[in-house]
Amino acid sequence: MFRLKHLAIDTLSEHVIFIHEDAVRGGNLGFRPLDRVSVVGIDAATGTTHEVTGVLNFCRNALINADEIGLSEVAYRDLALAEGSDVRAALAPAPKSLDLVRSKLEGKRLDQSGFDEILFDVVRNRYSKVELSMFVLACALQTLDLDELVALTRAMIGSGTSLRFQHKPIADKHCIGGIPGNRTTMVVVPILASLGLTVPKTSSRAITSPAGTADTMGVLADVALEPRRLYRVIESAGGCIAWGGALGLAPADDILITVERPMEIDTEAQMVASILSKKKTAGATHALLDIPVGSTSKVRSAQAAQRLEQLFRAVAERIDLVIDVVITEARGPIGWGIGPRLEAVDVLAVLRRTPGAPNDLREKSLYLAARILELVGGYSPGTGYRAAQQALDAGKAEEAFARIVAAQGERPLPPPAQFCHTFQSPADGRIREIDCWEIARVAKQAGAPANISAGVRLLRTVGDIVAKGEPLFEIHAQSSAQLEMGRTYAESHAAIFSFGF
Amino acid sequence: MFRLKHLAIDTLSEHVIFIHEDAVRGGNLGFRPLDRVSVVGIDAATGTTHEVTGVLNFCRNALINADEIGLSEVAYRDLALAEGSDVRAALAPAPKSLDLVRSKLEGKRLDQSGFDEILFDVVRNRYSKVELSMFVLACALQTLDLDELVALTRAMIGSGTSLRFQHKPIADKHCIGGIPGNRTTMVVVPILASLGLTVPKTSSRAITSPAGTADTMGVLADVALEPRRLYRVIESAGGCIAWGGALGLAPADDILITVERPMEIDTEAQMVASILSKKKTAGATHALLDIPVGSTSKVRSAQAAQRLEQLFRAVAERIDLVIDVVITEARGPIGWGIGPRLEAVDVLAVLRRTPGAPNDLREKSLYLAARILELVGGYSPGTGYRAAQQALDAGKAEEAFARIVAAQGERPLPPPAQFCHTFQSPADGRIREIDCWEIARVAKQAGAPANISAGVRLLRTVGDIVAKGEPLFEIHAQSSAQLEMGRTYAESHAAIFSFGF
Repeated sequence: MFRLKHLAIDTLSEHVIFIHEDAVRGGNLGFRPLDRVSVVGIDAATGTTHEVTGVLNFCRNALINADEIGLSEVAYRDLALAEGSDVRAALAPAPKSLDLVRSKLEGKRLDQSGFDEILFDVVRNRYSKVELSMFVLACALQTLDLDELVALTRAMIGSGTSLRFQHKPIADKHCIGGIPGNRTTMVVVPILASLGLTVPKTSSRAITSPAGTADTMGVLADVALEPRRLYRVIESAGGCIAWGGALGLAPADDILITVERPMEIDTEAQMVASILSKKKTAGATHALLDIPVGSTSKVRSAQAAQRLEQLFRAVAERIDLVIDVVITEARGPIGWGIGPRLEAVDVLAVLRRTPGAPNDLREKSLYLAARILELVGGYSPGTGYRAAQQALDAGKAEEAFARIVAAQGERPLPPPAQFCHTFQSPADGRIREIDCWEIARVAKQAGAPANISAGVRLLRTVGDIVAKGEPLFEIHAQSSAQLEMGRTYAESHAAIFSFGF
Repeated sequence: MFRLKHLAIDTLSEHVIFIHEDAVRGGNLGFRPLDRVSVVGIDAATGTTHEVTGVLNFCRNALINADEIGLSEVAYRDLALAEGSDVRAALAPAPKSLDLVRSKLEGKRLDQSGFDEILFDVVRNRYSKVELSMFVLACALQTLDLDELVALTRAMIGSGTSLRFQHKPIADKHCIGGIPGNRTTMVVVPILASLGLTVPKTSSRAITSPAGTADTMGVLADVALEPRRLYRVIESAGGCIAWGGALGLAPADDILITVERPMEIDTEAQMVASILSKKKTAGATHALLDIPVGSTSKVRSAQAAQRLEQLFRAVAERIDLVIDVVITEARGPIGWGIGPRLEAVDVLAVLRRTPGAPNDLREKSLYLAARILELVGGYSPGTGYRAAQQALDAGKAEEAFARIVAAQGERPLPPPAQFCHTFQSPADGRIREIDCWEIARVAKQAGAPANISAGVRLLRTVGDIVAKGEPLFEIHAQSSAQLEMGRTYAESHAAIFSFGF
C-alpha cells in the first residue's frame, strides 16, 4: 500500500508512474524500469475504484519516499484521487488492442472495430510512447487501403465529442500547412461571416512551425473556448477562430501527434484522417482544403498534390463531408510576418486595408473565400471573388472580425519584440524563392511561437527586385541571446533566399 | 544559466531533462515538453566543455527550482559535471543519422556507414524512445537484405568494445531463448572447460522471461565482471559465466532492446544481428546456436527454424565466425525449476549427479557439449557425447564449475522462498506438452526474476503419466500477495498442461 503523490511533471499525454527503488526491493515487488504498472485506489467519498496504468520510472532520491507512488500530471488527473490516498500498484497487461497493432505491422488489414479499439485505448492514455510509435508506423508503412483509411478517420471522429449546429450548411477551410505566415483563415472567416455563412473554425497551435492559426489568433483574442462558449460566439458573430485543443474534438489525433512530431514523418493517410476527422467533428458540412505545392513546402510536386487531392475526395465522400480542393503554388511565406504577433499585424493590415498590407495574403484570402462562397454560399461559379472583394473593401470583413474578437474576448496587441536585427540582401536580383523550412527555423530560433512577439519580418518578398546591401528581413526576439541564435542560424544558411528568374 | 541537479530517476538509457515551467516562461525560452534540448557546461577542473542532449519534461512543483535543470540518472552520468555546476540549455537539432532511419523507413537501402552512423548516435543515447522505435521498426518492416544485415551486425560489433584472447580457438554457445528453465550453459561450460576448451561465456539477464542465465548464475556467483576480472577468471578456470551487460559488448543492442521489449516484436534479422554481434565481441571464434522449436516457443515450425539457421550461417560466414546450429524440439520447460534460485538448484543437481536431478537438462547439456567438442575441440564426429558424459560423470565438470564459481566470487545459496503453493493435476493422463509462455507467466507473477527465490518448480514434466489430483507443480514466492498472484494466474489458465499422446 502506497500514498499517492502528485508530481507536476508534464510528459504530454504519457502516463508516467514514479516509484522509489527501495520500495521495489523492500516490498518484494517484481517491477523493473519501464514496466507497465497499474495504480488502483478507492475514492473515499463515493466508494468507487479508480485505476490508471502507466510506464514505471524508478527513483532513488528525495523526489518521492519509499511509501509513496508518484504520478505525472496527466496520470494524476486521470486517476482522479486526492493526494495522500492509499493506492496499490501491480504489473498490468498490455492493452489487448496492441495485438491488432502488431497484426497491422505484419501487413494484415484492420476493420472498423479494430481501429475503434485501438483509438479507444489511445485516448485513455493506455499506450506508451513506444506503442504509439508502433501504431503510427504501422499505418505509415503498411499501406492502408481506402476502407481502412475511412475506418481510421471514423475511429478518430468517434474518439471524442463533436460540435453540432442547428443551422446548416456549416463552412470550413483547412490548409495542410508548411507555409510560414499564410494566415488566410483570419481573413477568410470574417469575409464569409460578413456574407452570412456560419464558420465555426477550429485551428491548432504550432506543431513544428513558428506559429499556428490558434497562436496568431491568440495574440488578439481568447482562443481556448469550451463548446458552450464557442456556440455563443457563433450565435453572436456567425464565425469564430478557436483553438481546437480545448474542444476535445478527435483527441486520438492530438495524442498521435505527440509521436508524429519527433518522428517528422508525414504520411498522406494520416494527414487525410487527421484533417477530415477534425473538420467533421467541428460540425462542418462543407470544407475547402488548400494544398500548397513548392520545392520547400510539404508537398513538392503537382503529382503528389493530385494524389493527395484524390485521397481527400474519396474519404470525404465516405464520411459525408462535401469538399473542394485547391492546389496553390508556394514559392515562399505568405505575408510579411512569421511568428504570432507579426502575423496578427499582417491580418489586421489586410482587414483594415492599411497601406503596405501584404498583397499576397489579401489575394490568397480572397481566392479561398471565393471558392468557399461558390461551394456552399449559393454563389455561382465566377461570382465568388467579386463578393469576397466587396465584403473586404467595404469594411464588412473588418467589422465581422471585430465582432468575432469581441465575442471570444479581446486581448490588447502586445508591443513589438525588444530586440531586432536587420539582414541585408547578399545579392542583386529578383527574389525567386524563399525557403519555407529555413526561414521558419530562423523564426523558431528567435523564440517563436513560445515568445509571441518573436519571429521574422520580411521586408522584401518573392518577385521583388533588390540590390545587394538593401534591407531584406528583420529578426525579432525577446532576449538578446535568442536574437543571436536566430542571427547565427540565418548567417549560416545563406541559401534561404534564392535569386533569379 | 541554470544550476545542475542530479535527479536519480532511472529511465533506462533515455536522457530526460527536467526544467521548471516558470523558467521557460520567465526566461523567454521557447521550449515545449518533449523538445530535444542540449545542456552544456564547463568542467571547472579541466576547462573542457561537456554536453548532453535529451528529451525535455516540464515540472511545476518542488522537484526542481526555476533556476535548476534536472537530469535523469544516465543523462547526469553522461554529462559528467558536478551537481550545482552552471549549465546552459538550448534547443538541439535531431541527430543527422535520423535522416538515414527515415530513408530506411521509406524502403531505401543502408550501407555500412549508414548503420555505423545510426548506432554511433544510439550508444551515445542521442535517440529518444520514439526515435529508437523508428529504427527498430524500420529494420523489422523494411526487409534487410543480406548485405544490410551483415552491415547492421558489424555496426553492432563496432558500437562497443570486444574481448580478446591470446589462445584460440574460443568456444561459445547460445540458445535463442523462449524455453523456461533450460540452463544448459551452466552445465556445458564446465564440461568444456574440464576438457581444456576456453569458454568465456557471457549471458544476458532476463528480458521478458522469469530468469536469464546471468540471473541464475548470479545466485551462485558474482556475474558482473569487468573485462580485467573476466580475463583473470578465464586464466584460472578456463571458462566463465558472466553477465554481458557489465562488459560493454555491442552496447547498441542493449539500448535497442529497451524498446524491443515493450514492442514484443522479434524479427529474425534483429535476432541474428544481436546474437552474432554478442558472440563476436565476446571473443568467440566458434559458436553453437540452439534453436528450440515448439508450438509455444519462439520458433514454431521446422521451416521457420531452417530459415533462421540459413540466416545465422550466412551472416556468421561474413563476419568470420565459425558456427554450428542445432534445431531442438521444445515441448515444455527444461529442468524442474523456473526462476533464478530454482534453476540454480537444478544445475547443481546435474553437476553433482544427485538422485532426482533433471534428466532432460542433463541430456540436452551433454548433446550440446558434444556438438561443440566436435566443432572446435578436435573430437571426430560421434565421439563428443562420450567425452562429455565422462567429464560429467567423473565429477570433472563439477570441479570445473567450482573453479569458475570460486574465481568469479562465490555466493551462498539463498534459502527457498517462504511461501509455497502446490497445484494438483486437473486430469489423468500423460503430459503431452507444457505451455512455455504461460508457465513462465506464472513464475513472473510470483516475482521471478526480481525475487531470486520465486518461481515455479515442476514436480512432473513432459512424458510423465499422472493421476488427477496428484501434485503437478509448486509456486514459490517471497510474499503472500505474490503467491496469490501466481496462483490466480495459474488457476485462470487451465491449459498450461496438455494431456494425451
